[in-house]
Amino acid sequence: MKKLSLLGATGSIGRQTLDVIQQHREDFSLAAFSAGRNIEETRKIIGDFQPKLVSVELREDAEKLKAEFPSLKVMYGEEGLVETAVFEETDMLVNAVLGSVGLRPTLQAIEAGKKIAIANKETLVTAGHLVMAAAKKHNVELLPVDSEHSAIFQCLQGERKKNIERLILTASGGSFRDRTREELKDVTVQEALNHPNWSMGAKITIDSATMMNKGLEVIEAHWLFHLPYEQIDVILHRESIIHSMVEFHDSSVIAQLGTPDMRVPIQYALSYPDRLPLPTARRLNLLEAGHLHFQPMNQERFRMLALAYQAGKAGGTVPTVLNAANEAAVAAFLDGKITFLQIDEMVERALEKHQSISQPDLETIQQTDKETRNFVHSLL
Amino acid sequence: MKKLSLLGATGSIGRQTLDVIQQHREDFSLAAFSAGRNIEETRKIIGDFQPKLVSVELREDAEKLKAEFPSLKVMYGEEGLVETAVFEETDMLVNAVLGSVGLRPTLQAIEAGKKIAIANKETLVTAGHLVMAAAKKHNVELLPVDSEHSAIFQCLQGERKKNIERLILTASGGSFRDRTREELKDVTVQEALNHPNWSMGAKITIDSATMMNKGLEVIEAHWLFHLPYEQIDVILHRESIIHSMVEFHDSSVIAQLGTPDMRVPIQYALSYPDRLPLPTARRLNLLEAGHLHFQPMNQERFRMLALAYQAGKAGGTVPTVLNAANEAAVAAFLDGKITFLQIDEMVERALEKHQSISQPDLETIQQTDKETRNFVHSLL
Repeated sequence: MKKLSLLGATGSIGRQTLDVIQQHREDFSLAAFSAGRNIEETRKIIGDFQPKLVSVELREDAEKLKAEFPSLKVMYGEEGLVETAVFEETDMLVNAVLGSVGLRPTLQAIEAGKKIAIANKETLVTAGHLVMAAAKKHNVELLPVDSEHSAIFQCLQGERKKNIERLILTASGGSFRDRTREELKDVTVQEALNHPNWSMGAKITIDSATMMNKGLEVIEAHWLFHLPYEQIDVILHRESIIHSMVEFHDSSVIAQLGTPDMRVPIQYALSYPDRLPLPTARRLNLLEAGHLHFQPMNQERFRMLALAYQAGKAGGTVPTVLNAANEAAVAAFLDGKITFLQIDEMVERALEKHQSISQPDLETIQQTDKETRNFVHSLL
Repeated sequence: MKKLSLLGATGSIGRQTLDVIQQHREDFSLAAFSAGRNIEETRKIIGDFQPKLVSVELREDAEKLKAEFPSLKVMYGEEGLVETAVFEETDMLVNAVLGSVGLRPTLQAIEAGKKIAIANKETLVTAGHLVMAAAKKHNVELLPVDSEHSAIFQCLQGERKKNIERLILTASGGSFRDRTREELKDVTVQEALNHPNWSMGAKITIDSATMMNKGLEVIEAHWLFHLPYEQIDVILHRESIIHSMVEFHDSSVIAQLGTPDMRVPIQYALSYPDRLPLPTARRLNLLEAGHLHFQPMNQERFRMLALAYQAGKAGGTVPTVLNAANEAAVAAFLDGKITFLQIDEMVERALEKHQSISQPDLETIQQTDKETRNFVHSLL
């Protein structure tokens, strides 16, 4: 029985994590979780999973819950997030919060020796060097939850790092893959949120449309698999059936395939190194799919991918700026304050303005993150 | 340094095995090999690889070689084949002979504790239960060389057997995949030998055209991976880029892909569990390929595949009959004695006539093999 802490329980990955736990009550239990402001759903999760600790965003919500569930430990805010991450009764942290807010809880959980299932890619993008150094120091396993990184992780089982020629991340192309840049000028939030293959949260769906999601994934892969950017490629694969691949130096390629169901990589991270049945997942039917397509990735068209490669290679605080500017710009787009193409523009301007600091510590990263967000807000 | 014995050095797989050894002189050496009647090529291999033992088919050829290479141990015939297989100075046997003649050397090598890289699928088809029982008893690893089985073996690294939902073997469809049965009536040997993707020996190319090759592979997979036939599927995949796949019970599918180059699975068997570079192999370029297609396998059209499943499930001496009748019929077709569609017919007639014997021992299998060949010859 693995006892889990779950950060971000009411988000898209959080809900699917609860579904996996639900289907494997003998293998997993939920000891602690965090949620945002959705108190109705938080109540329901408490009732369904009987955790020992819950953390929410606001103090008043925490007080309400405390009154309703007297035997429950209830916390709130950033401190609550960290306490949930390091809760002593848990073996493993599933970090499914959104954005760089996931960084501190992840670092603290690593120091507390928890295994980490990491869905929060922004943490690795903004401070990959700190996270990986801490994981190494405390001998903690970081298990990917993103479908692409889970695919690569699965493909690498039983393999040796020295034999890797390159990683090949696949990209569906997002909501606007068949449009030119010109045709993106007036797209609406609603159009951008309509992903062709995957049902995901709003932020990641917009990131898929701008291709920043793939850029963040390239940086995430760099850290998770300890490979230089020159060994990480991206190709367009519209069907999202091959989730990613690894090419070895004997020319053999191992790929992981499946239907677009995030519960599969979530469950793999939880059950690793074993697998568990997931009978409610739709099985892949290649005969029904009929064919798989592959196209080169156009970095002119998808400028954010090029920016992400550049930021990753530059290192220092540059990826922090890339990520923070993107988070702020996407939020502004979702709020109707800027157009779709202005997301790219904001990120580019933030990167242009920034003077990189090498080997930044946590404080420097948090400061850079904050300054970048302020800069983007000043442009609105 | 692994010291190898190679049976069938002048065949297609044998030559490619020598190429792999040639490219990795520090990892592999050729201690012993067998060849057929191509004495010119045998001389060249002796010169290039300096083995200690060589075996050829005919006594007079052995005597000639003995006179030319006085320090070399030279043998001939079936005894020579067995001696090459068990040669005391070798660690591993690469069995690349054609047909059920590979059975006895394989069994003897297993008893002698040699690792086996098995390209000789007929051995497993004709007597899988004996081979696998012997391998288990002597704790010997059987490493697949067939591209499909190597693919599955690669996909299974780091995985647990209990989690396998099914194996999915891919089939290119062979030389005649786009013809109806009606259109196969008058095809020539030359047309049948023209495989669209792979460059292989004559027998396996004909087996690909009749789909018997895939049938033999299904039976081979049953034995190598200890799975019932219900968990082994075949799909048509014309590009031969995905070499085979494994579906797990969490719905995740792992696939192995590559260009059609038999040196890759050969080298993997030799280097296992490590991989070695193979810079002369052409790298897979999915962008160039552009797309991969999948179609259901029509067992009416490819009757031999249905027969192979039936024979495999029936067990006993039935697979021995399937294989021996096929070997004899393919030889007759290559000799111009029967038409392409008569291959199927001969195999069906041999199966119809046969009374199965369960749990056959080696003698019974060899007797059945001989009787079946005689029966097919009597029909010519």
